[in-house]
Amino acid sequence: MKLIRFGEPGQEKAGVMLNDVKYDVSAFGEDYNEQFFQSNGLERLKTYVQQNEGKLPQVADDVRLGSPIARPSKIVCIGLNYADHAKETGAAIPQEPIVFFKATSALCGPNDNVIIPKNSEKLDWEVELAVIIGKKASYVSEEEALEYVAGYALHNDYSERAFQLERGGQWVKGKSNDTFAPVGPFLATPDELENVDNLRLWLTVNGKTMQDGTTANLIFKIPFLVSYLSQFMTLLPGDMITTGTPAGVGLGMNPQVYLKEGDVVELGIDGLGSSKQTVKAYA
Amino acid sequence: MKLIRFGEPGQEKAGVMLNDVKYDVSAFGEDYNEQFFQSNGLERLKTYVQQNEGKLPQVADDVRLGSPIARPSKIVCIGLNYADHAKETGAAIPQEPIVFFKATSALCGPNDNVIIPKNSEKLDWEVELAVIIGKKASYVSEEEALEYVAGYALHNDYSERAFQLERGGQWVKGKSNDTFAPVGPFLATPDELENVDNLRLWLTVNGKTMQDGTTANLIFKIPFLVSYLSQFMTLLPGDMITTGTPAGVGLGMNPQVYLKEGDVVELGIDGLGSSKQTVKAYA
Repeated sequence: MKLIRFGEPGQEKAGVMLNDVKYDVSAFGEDYNEQFFQSNGLERLKTYVQQNEGKLPQVADDVRLGSPIARPSKIVCIGLNYADHAKETGAAIPQEPIVFFKATSALCGPNDNVIIPKNSEKLDWEVELAVIIGKKASYVSEEEALEYVAGYALHNDYSERAFQLERGGQWVKGKSNDTFAPVGPFLATPDELENVDNLRLWLTVNGKTMQDGTTANLIFKIPFLVSYLSQFMTLLPGDMITTGTPAGVGLGMNPQVYLKEGDVVELGIDGLGSSKQTVKAYA
Repeated sequence: MKLIRFGEPGQEKAGVMLNDVKYDVSAFGEDYNEQFFQSNGLERLKTYVQQNEGKLPQVADDVRLGSPIARPSKIVCIGLNYADHAKETGAAIPQEPIVFFKATSALCGPNDNVIIPKNSEKLDWEVELAVIIGKKASYVSEEEALEYVAGYALHNDYSERAFQLERGGQWVKGKSNDTFAPVGPFLATPDELENVDNLRLWLTVNGKTMQDGTTANLIFKIPFLVSYLSQFMTLLPGDMITTGTPAGVGLGMNPQVYLKEGDVVELGIDGLGSSKQTVKAYA
């Protein structure tokens, strides 16, 4: 199943995609939030969609998409989880996952504009595979970890490198501005993907390929990450883990390259669709 | 006004404290969450309390208290914000605020047990003044920052030092376990405090004083913090900023001292009451 949320920001309605066509399931009466995932919502929605096959209202193809999940309790980010990206930033390969949070207020739709914050000069991109948690997870073993995964989505972990690295202390300052977390176009349940450990992920800026990697190169794989994180915090249904980015970010180039107004960023992951953000100055 | 939430975990009802007596205002029909603060809830609640003076149901004094705010969108923590604490941990005085997040799933009541996580050996305490945001804050100036503050509360920013400092990367790993954020007993609106910049804050372990400081020694003051953070993220109504801890944590002692099962931690801030946590092993 592929879940979407569509409509105006803050007013999104629930939908599904069936054979690339978007349908409105707002009559199902639930948003894709903690309560939905917690209460076996995916199974209930599947039944609803089956029972209403052929009767669901179709949605215009050019409708605005929101994030396919409602604002979660947390967005947990994994840093330097591809060896080639660690190398390009001059960092060592981590011995354990590097973990930081992104403010959930940064969440936005997959094709919304990305806004350059005030006083920002180093806005960078990071195509990432995001994992959505389906069940409350605390001290989960690696073996059972995938039972706690509701699905996957495409994410661009926008980062302001000066805020992140030159302003003292921790990375969260450079990860949390509004529009820094475009997610989607859709959440795909695990059955939609042939092999989540072998997905190509790519990103272009103004049509030029900057990132072209594969989840086969993840240093820490998804079951390990879910298990690992659940030792340090309780993951709640609807929470998002974003698993790190492969090489090709602006920070890693020589000279470094950052986004400027009018640039167009496009990205995609096999089986998880593509998204497109236009860079705008804060106004 | 002093706001409380009381009752079983996850089932808390809204209340107020008037002259140290607890009253049930669940008939007001709202929880102290984003929607409440956003919609001028404090003013509306004040009117409700005035209109119902003498008619509000009293609550048993020994009722369990929850956090006085519902789970916020984020808990933003300021690190090393007292010079004496920076010194005891061997860190330099920060040039800019050090910012990290604590998982909101760590939130709990002021007198709930604190649970030692599995594989934890370095559970530490940190008495802190927490600031609760009242209005959506983005690019707020220092001069207007206090208009965005709904109130203040007592917080113990529990920290697992090995998770925080010895497991690679960022601090969030040592700040986010369940029960690591006891808040309360109450949220006090600003008018309840004579001078938030001159409050004594203290903490004892098994009756022995470990921390005894004053908010007069905050390196970065509250208006600066609200303004500063609002450059990097949008603060939402109900969000919590916890402003750092003075000297006297276990990490700073020689030899270091950490909490063990059965220890009793008590803490307080002038005008914001006191709280008490008993240390329990994970079971």
